[in-house]
Amino acid sequence: MENYTIKDLSVGMSATMSKTVTEADIVLFAGVTGDFNPAHIDAEYAAQSMFKERIAHGMLSAGFISATLAMKMPGPGSIYLSQSLKFKAPVKIGDTVKTIVTITDINEKRKIIQLETNCSVGDTVVVVGEASLMKP
Amino acid sequence: MENYTIKDLSVGMSATMSKTVTEADIVLFAGVTGDFNPAHIDAEYAAQSMFKERIAHGMLSAGFISATLAMKMPGPGSIYLSQSLKFKAPVKIGDTVKTIVTITDINEKRKIIQLETNCSVGDTVVVVGEASLMKP
Amino acid sequence: MENYTIKDLSVGMSATMSKTVTEADIVLFAGVTGDFNPAHIDAEYAAQSMFKERIAHGMLSAGFISATLAMKMPGPGSIYLSQSLKFKAPVKIGDTVKTIVTITDINEKRKIIQLETNCSVGDTVVVVGEASLMKP
Amino acid sequence: MENYTIKDLSVGMSATMSKTVTEADIVLFAGVTGDFNPAHIDAEYAAQSMFKERIAHGMLSAGFISATLAMKMPGPGSIYLSQSLKFKAPVKIGDTVKTIVTITDINEKRKIIQLETNCSVGDTVVVVGEASLMKP
Repeated sequence: MENYTIKDLSVGMSATMSKTVTEADIVLFAGVTGDFNPAHIDAEYAAQSMFKERIAHGMLSAGFISATLAMKMPGPGSIYLSQSLKFKAPVKIGDTVKTIVTITDINEKRKIIQLETNCSVGDTVVVVGEASLMKP
Repeated sequence: MENYTIKDLSVGMSATMSKTVTEADIVLFAGVTGDFNPAHIDAEYAAQSMFKERIAHGMLSAGFISATLAMKMPGPGSIYLSQSLKFKAPVKIGDTVKTIVTITDINEKRKIIQLETNCSVGDTVVVVGEASLMKP
Repeated sequence: MENYTIKDLSVGMSATMSKTVTEADIVLFAGVTGDFNPAHIDAEYAAQSMFKERIAHGMLSAGFISATLAMKMPGPGSIYLSQSLKFKAPVKIGDTVKTIVTITDINEKRKIIQLETNCSVGDTVVVVGEASLMKP
Repeated sequence: MENYTIKDLSVGMSATMSKTVTEADIVLFAGVTGDFNPAHIDAEYAAQSMFKERIAHGMLSAGFISATLAMKMPGPGSIYLSQSLKFKAPVKIGDTVKTIVTITDINEKRKIIQLETNCSVGDTVVVVGEASLMKP
């Protein structure tokens, strides 16, 4: 894991992580959160839905954003203050989600870093959002 | 699970779910997201941190919000459009997180529902935010 | 589970276990170990790699060796002293790994048993190694 | 994740990762490997054993070595050739295992890196071993 201090960081720096979403991820995510939405865990229901098949929880992609912030940049020791998320398109089983976080602002005095946080599958953006973290 | 249509819903209605956060939840959440932030999985590191012990991933609480929206209100069939999250206080192993979602606005024409989404542990609010869902 | 004493064992005795490797095994193994090598969890990265698809963690096969030693022979109550492992070929999702452990030496005085420990998929040997255990 | 080429590496460089071992880790490791040795999953049996309580699978620590090699150094894209392991002391539930891998030899022509790979809990070394990887 990187160990950036706020002085190592600058606007425009970015970091990325990728993970293929499996059926097991969805089962486990449902299990720990209690989100048994049939869109995620009922293949017959999902086949009749607008997405035609089971989709991953949007918050799983949010978890990938959290992972990228914690493991890559700004890295461990950051304190997560806020996150906004817009869900733009579904993630399906077998999709590889690429998460990119890019620094958009640094307030050195308050030690607060703003980042744009996007997830995509191939050329399709699936989640856009913004994060704010403190890096003491 | 409830099966509300948008006509059944009105501003001020709320729903709630509670879950105790276990060490297993944190292990599994780390496993599916890849978020091995030492604040979550390294007890020795965490003991030296400002929180003095391991804390849960903030996005686990976000998952509880997603669960409450999907399982209780507005219920299955809703499409998650957006979520904002402010992390106000840590959740520790053994804490019981109570999630409350309350409708703040309904746009019947566009079929869009706005909710306030808060998580708390005892009297301490740990996450505040707002969600927007479409209920076709 | 068998309950051999050291007097029941002789050089040349062998035991075997087989397990099909699933995507869920890889997700969970990554989750407990923290080994999110993209070769295991990123299908797009893996498609560009020399193995053309995701492969299982080599240490998952090592876990099958440990299982065979503990569950079959020398059985519960053995103390694992050492293990060597050579990774000869990849294990892919859906492969059935057959583990064979064969006693190569017994030191009755020191109560130490040496075994050859091999894993294969069909006719392909994927892991070879040697184990040493004490059987009190 | 670091992206070292073999030219960036030199003898004596080291990398580390730490993880607290939980009951959930042991349950999941038993589940994916089939190693239901009562020393790991039967608290009553374990209370009568020489270690007085359940201990983690030795191969879980081996998994931490694999994680450190894959995630830190030599990093993703390395091909695992071999690993030796000597189990020196047990790891108990709640122990934080620190893994250190240190380069002991580099063969630039054959692109092979040798590392010393040790795990410890506090001041106690629990696993010692050596790894060999190819970094193409």
